[in-house]
Amino acid sequence: MRALVFNDAYSVSMEDVPDPEIQVATDAIVRVVATCVCGSDLWYYRGDTPRRPGSRIGHEFVGVVEAIGTDVGTLRVGDFVIAPFMYSDGTCPHCLNGITSSCVHGGYWAARGVDGGQGEFVRVPLADGTLVVVPGGRPDDALIPHLLALSDVCGTGHHAAIGAGVRPGSVVAVVGDGAVGLSGILAARRLGAERIIALSRNPERQAVATAFGATDLVEVRGQDAVVAVLELTGGLGADATLECVGTGESMNTAFAIARPGSRVGFVGVPHGVEFPIDIAFYNNVGLGGGLAPVRAYLPDLLADVLDGSIEPGRVFDLTVEFEQLPEGYAAMDERRAIKAMARLS
Amino acid sequence: MRALVFNDAYSVSMEDVPDPEIQVATDAIVRVVATCVCGSDLWYYRGDTPRRPGSRIGHEFVGVVEAIGTDVGTLRVGDFVIAPFMYSDGTCPHCLNGITSSCVHGGYWAARGVDGGQGEFVRVPLADGTLVVVPGGRPDDALIPHLLALSDVCGTGHHAAIGAGVRPGSVVAVVGDGAVGLSGILAARRLGAERIIALSRNPERQAVATAFGATDLVEVRGQDAVVAVLELTGGLGADATLECVGTGESMNTAFAIARPGSRVGFVGVPHGVEFPIDIAFYNNVGLGGGLAPVRAYLPDLLADVLDGSIEPGRVFDLTVEFEQLPEGYAAMDERRAIKAMARLS
Repeated sequence: MRALVFNDAYSVSMEDVPDPEIQVATDAIVRVVATCVCGSDLWYYRGDTPRRPGSRIGHEFVGVVEAIGTDVGTLRVGDFVIAPFMYSDGTCPHCLNGITSSCVHGGYWAARGVDGGQGEFVRVPLADGTLVVVPGGRPDDALIPHLLALSDVCGTGHHAAIGAGVRPGSVVAVVGDGAVGLSGILAARRLGAERIIALSRNPERQAVATAFGATDLVEVRGQDAVVAVLELTGGLGADATLECVGTGESMNTAFAIARPGSRVGFVGVPHGVEFPIDIAFYNNVGLGGGLAPVRAYLPDLLADVLDGSIEPGRVFDLTVEFEQLPEGYAAMDERRAIKAMARLS
Repeated sequence: MRALVFNDAYSVSMEDVPDPEIQVATDAIVRVVATCVCGSDLWYYRGDTPRRPGSRIGHEFVGVVEAIGTDVGTLRVGDFVIAPFMYSDGTCPHCLNGITSSCVHGGYWAARGVDGGQGEFVRVPLADGTLVVVPGGRPDDALIPHLLALSDVCGTGHHAAIGAGVRPGSVVAVVGDGAVGLSGILAARRLGAERIIALSRNPERQAVATAFGATDLVEVRGQDAVVAVLELTGGLGADATLECVGTGESMNTAFAIARPGSRVGFVGVPHGVEFPIDIAFYNNVGLGGGLAPVRAYLPDLLADVLDGSIEPGRVFDLTVEFEQLPEGYAAMDERRAIKAMARLS
């Protein structure tokens, strides 16, 4: 089978690798129908975080169950499934508490002998706990981007909104106009936000932001953005602030525009964040969010995709052939694309 | 009149100062009946934070209204009142939102021309918004410590518990056995916590902790404390963690013992905190709390003091004559006392 492999900074390539096989009775094998590139994939792609040369990559995919282990009880061969960006058993105390990303037996794709998601087939550990079946068999092609978005960005944006405490009527600010930030806008609207201020300077991203529910666009950055958001909120700041980047600057901006007593929901993997503890303390701005427990959110978000009330796949503005997936990385790295996906069959 | 004045590190002294007068129509003058020393007073006492020599100090007091400005509507001369540790108007958007510590017109005692609380009389700005009347006139002497504790530590401990999300049935851990940490234990019990793990090695503080509702005592620190709390919680961590110190070590301990998906409520003024952003992210441990909006909590907590359901003044284990208040600082600095109060009349 073919799978994408990391070689070195700015070098990923499609290689022949062994077909996966059931290894333990709780495994399933999924034939990947669509996969995509995450903003977090760019950290190692750009050499900002270390990664072993030759390692498999990717953590977002949807596909068809090809085989199941003898202990798998909720899946059948032929099911169309969504894989969240981590696998989890669904039965440990953390999973039962909704924090599937802390699953005692769970872990990351493309690590410790587990396949990456950017390949033709994936061995899925703890398949019963991990995979979510899309009812009704193989969905229409038009639906696939929206289902694929549930693998990570839609649930991650939702987690930012939950972490920030978005409620009906909230005035929300979203820092970051990548696929996760845009998904945060969608999540805030879905949770009933009255006003959604998106910090974005890029016309293509602004268009998606507006389609997803942004009511105000702030096109400046840093201190200018703080001034602009405070002006838009009568000097009070936002009732709920989503930090969807993960850098020190974005975190500082988020805390500076948050209303006293509110929360910042953060979901970007923190890189070089010097946390603004003094603003947090003196303004009573809390922090929520973290590594999103996407699996826990999947059933509710899937229902909304299936009934057409949300279209999270609009974040995909580049679709490539599977063999051309390295071009997806390059396009996202160069900000020519918000998010790139590949269809396999 | 006499008032305590800061001279230099480890030097505070009682001095003659001018009697306060009504300056604006929203002022009141309060004759202080009892005042006390705060753990946060020790920061400048020890020279850890700068303070102008000759400046007035103190921010906790109860007393009797001696005079009111012409615009004061809710107070009468002779009322017995509690002053929260900041003054606030009670009418600005932040006050109305419950974050009185961010009041647009409010501020700190003993700063910018405002009197300190460790004096015989205090001019109270924004008196209607700031002061809380104790119904029924001058209370019994036995009640005064409990009322004085409402000035700061009781409400601050409550804010830690609220920030940490304590609910009925919660397993709570409290880092810090100072007066605020002990008050956090009391608050957690009041909010219905089922189990309260107190990190304390000091027998006198352990006794108060237990009286306030602690069910388990952890007598080790640092990594050993983390191991102990995880053992006590079946490896899961605490449902709600109160960080009541404000140092880097206490913050790290708090995040390490917090259950994934839970929150740390912090109320200690942060000093040298390197925030554990990676634990926050990967374990989904949120942060709540900050500078406590004690004024907003005062009516509810006062009702519980008046009906005898809480006795927050048990944190005072040293009572001195007002003129001996410097000894209260020394005793707290040397950890001979948990919290020192002075009665004036």
